[in-house]
Amino acid sequence: MNEFRSKFLEVYSLLKSELLHDPAFEFTDDSRQWVERMLDYNVPGGKLNRGLSVIDSYKLLKQGGKLTEDEVFLASALGWCIEWLQAYFLILDDIMDNAVTRRGQPCWFRVPKVGMVAVNDGTMLRNHISRILKNHFKEKPYYVDLMELFNEVEFQTASGQMIDLITTLEGEKDLSKYSLPLHHRIVQYKTAYYSFYLPVACALLMAGENLENHNDVKNILIDMGTYFQVQDDYLDCFGLPDVIGKIGTDIEDFKCSWLVVKALELSDEKQKSLLHENYGKADTDCVARVKELYKALNLEGVFSEYERKSYEKLLKSIEVHPSDAVQAVLKSFLAKIYKRQK
Amino acid sequence: MNEFRSKFLEVYSLLKSELLHDPAFEFTDDSRQWVERMLDYNVPGGKLNRGLSVIDSYKLLKQGGKLTEDEVFLASALGWCIEWLQAYFLILDDIMDNAVTRRGQPCWFRVPKVGMVAVNDGTMLRNHISRILKNHFKEKPYYVDLMELFNEVEFQTASGQMIDLITTLEGEKDLSKYSLPLHHRIVQYKTAYYSFYLPVACALLMAGENLENHNDVKNILIDMGTYFQVQDDYLDCFGLPDVIGKIGTDIEDFKCSWLVVKALELSDEKQKSLLHENYGKADTDCVARVKELYKALNLEGVFSEYERKSYEKLLKSIEVHPSDAVQAVLKSFLAKIYKRQK
Ligand SMILES: [Mg+2]
Ligand SMILES: [Mg+2]
Ligand SMILES: [Mg+2]
Ligand SMILES: [Mg+2]
Ligand SMILES: [Mg+2]
Ligand SMILES: [Mg+2]
Repeated sequence: MNEFRSKFLEVYSLLKSELLHDPAFEFTDDSRQWVERMLDYNVPGGKLNRGLSVIDSYKLLKQGGKLTEDEVFLASALGWCIEWLQAYFLILDDIMDNAVTRRGQPCWFRVPKVGMVAVNDGTMLRNHISRILKNHFKEKPYYVDLMELFNEVEFQTASGQMIDLITTLEGEKDLSKYSLPLHHRIVQYKTAYYSFYLPVACALLMAGENLENHNDVKNILIDMGTYFQVQDDYLDCFGLPDVIGKIGTDIEDFKCSWLVVKALELSDEKQKSLLHENYGKADTDCVARVKELYKALNLEGVFSEYERKSYEKLLKSIEVHPSDAVQAVLKSFLAKIYKRQK
Repeated sequence: MNEFRSKFLEVYSLLKSELLHDPAFEFTDDSRQWVERMLDYNVPGGKLNRGLSVIDSYKLLKQGGKLTEDEVFLASALGWCIEWLQAYFLILDDIMDNAVTRRGQPCWFRVPKVGMVAVNDGTMLRNHISRILKNHFKEKPYYVDLMELFNEVEFQTASGQMIDLITTLEGEKDLSKYSLPLHHRIVQYKTAYYSFYLPVACALLMAGENLENHNDVKNILIDMGTYFQVQDDYLDCFGLPDVIGKIGTDIEDFKCSWLVVKALELSDEKQKSLLHENYGKADTDCVARVKELYKALNLEGVFSEYERKSYEKLLKSIEVHPSDAVQAVLKSFLAKIYKRQK
């Protein structure tokens, strides 16, 4: 249980209430209720790892000194901006993927009377981030950096989504496009920037750091985010549904998963054509054949080896970092994900 | 023909090319082509009034002095940011309204292979604005104001969209909610801020002005934008399809139009129930009955009177403004829309 969790949840209520009384818009009763319900449905229901990690990282950067009330509040507000950003991405991603459930409940656009209004709700969440930053960080010396950081990371995530979407376009299913570099590019942009780099970058800005001096930190976090997504791809097929909380469908969905990319790399001609014939079909026999091939190619062993090597490499690159505080931040991220089962 | 038009179009090509080689993302060939096609399809195909008016307004603020190359470029870049913003709103609005055509071609989401990828494309356009501002305005003293301006106006537009969407929710068709204050609130937020206030605010910032000193200008432009939208509502029913370039469907779509609000205000009980029974139905007889009622209530005359009074009131509020240059800007906007037929 994170020591900041209850404080963090209090900050959510405060931010929400500010947004529901934003003087830049004259709410009607209906629209205020709509936004409140939309926020409660979409923003606070995840694991909150990304948001909480801003406070944890900031504390580590302060070398263990106790945080003031104000520092906890500001780090929480930035943490919530990341949770808001994530909620925005997820609402729109579920529409584009025609998904059914999210965090154990129907996707927002599937809720009665919501439908495509969810598109506007998604953009509203993004707009809320700018409002929160303006309300609480306008007087800070790092205000511009913060706005630019959120802008750039949003741009990178949308760009990653784009290559993900256009490589899986209906009617253009072509496995021969899939490769390790493409996989790497998709996950780097779609996941790593906002999930790994953004929380630490927020904490660094709050600590008065210039992000231009921390390219090494960015690169390590991007590599960590890539490793995290490879685990996600692995668990989609080999994880326990009860543990990961869902039944994976990457094979059916023709996803550019690390597993299929590795399989293509290790397959002989016959195995390759089996993949081409069976990958990306909703048919259970096709899925079973792909899974059999993954086992025949020992992808479980290949993944274990990848996991071991990634961990070693990440640890090495962390340990050459000159700052102990930064090392502590990076190690805490790595410890949270190494050999995770969900 | 606007004197800046050809220069303005040149700037589009330059901005596009910068975006297609943005160092914050490693494009694949496919994704670069995708973005280029998406931009060409959605951004430059409108009348460009909003974009061009930034340059015109800036020139008037400079009291007729000749603009430098650099000034024309910067004003054009801001003009394009507004066109980008508009394209973003329109792509998403067409998805939410399930529209068919836009600017004489199929809506972007209806183009083969695009579909719901259009949601991500819309957000990409918004992200491009931040990239353009960073590329060309980062060193300007008004950089933060510019970012905050675009953020606030986007937030207001999304809020206006929200009340528009939730008052016309399927299954909640309730005419008794419609009133002049609600109509005013929808059009003020959904249209007036970004179409009227934003271009002038951009020009004011470029001219070194502090927007906090120009609340009077904002209020006049919001009133002008409201008047503009009332014209739009009027033309949807009484305009000539050949002239306005489309066949209006506000009656079928249960829109909170100025006409229905006025009709409700002027109707007796019998006429009110006719409206309740026939408004918002795709049936041609229902539509004809509503139009008949509009004629019986002399909404054409009521509109003429509204138009005359609005014009007088706007002109008066412009003429008390202390700055001749600002008066010239506001008058040029008013002249462009007074008694427009399309
Ligand atoms: Mg998805
Ligand atoms: Mg997706
Ligand atoms: Mg997955
Ligand atoms: Mg529409
Ligand atoms: Mg609409
Ligand atoms: Mg209209």
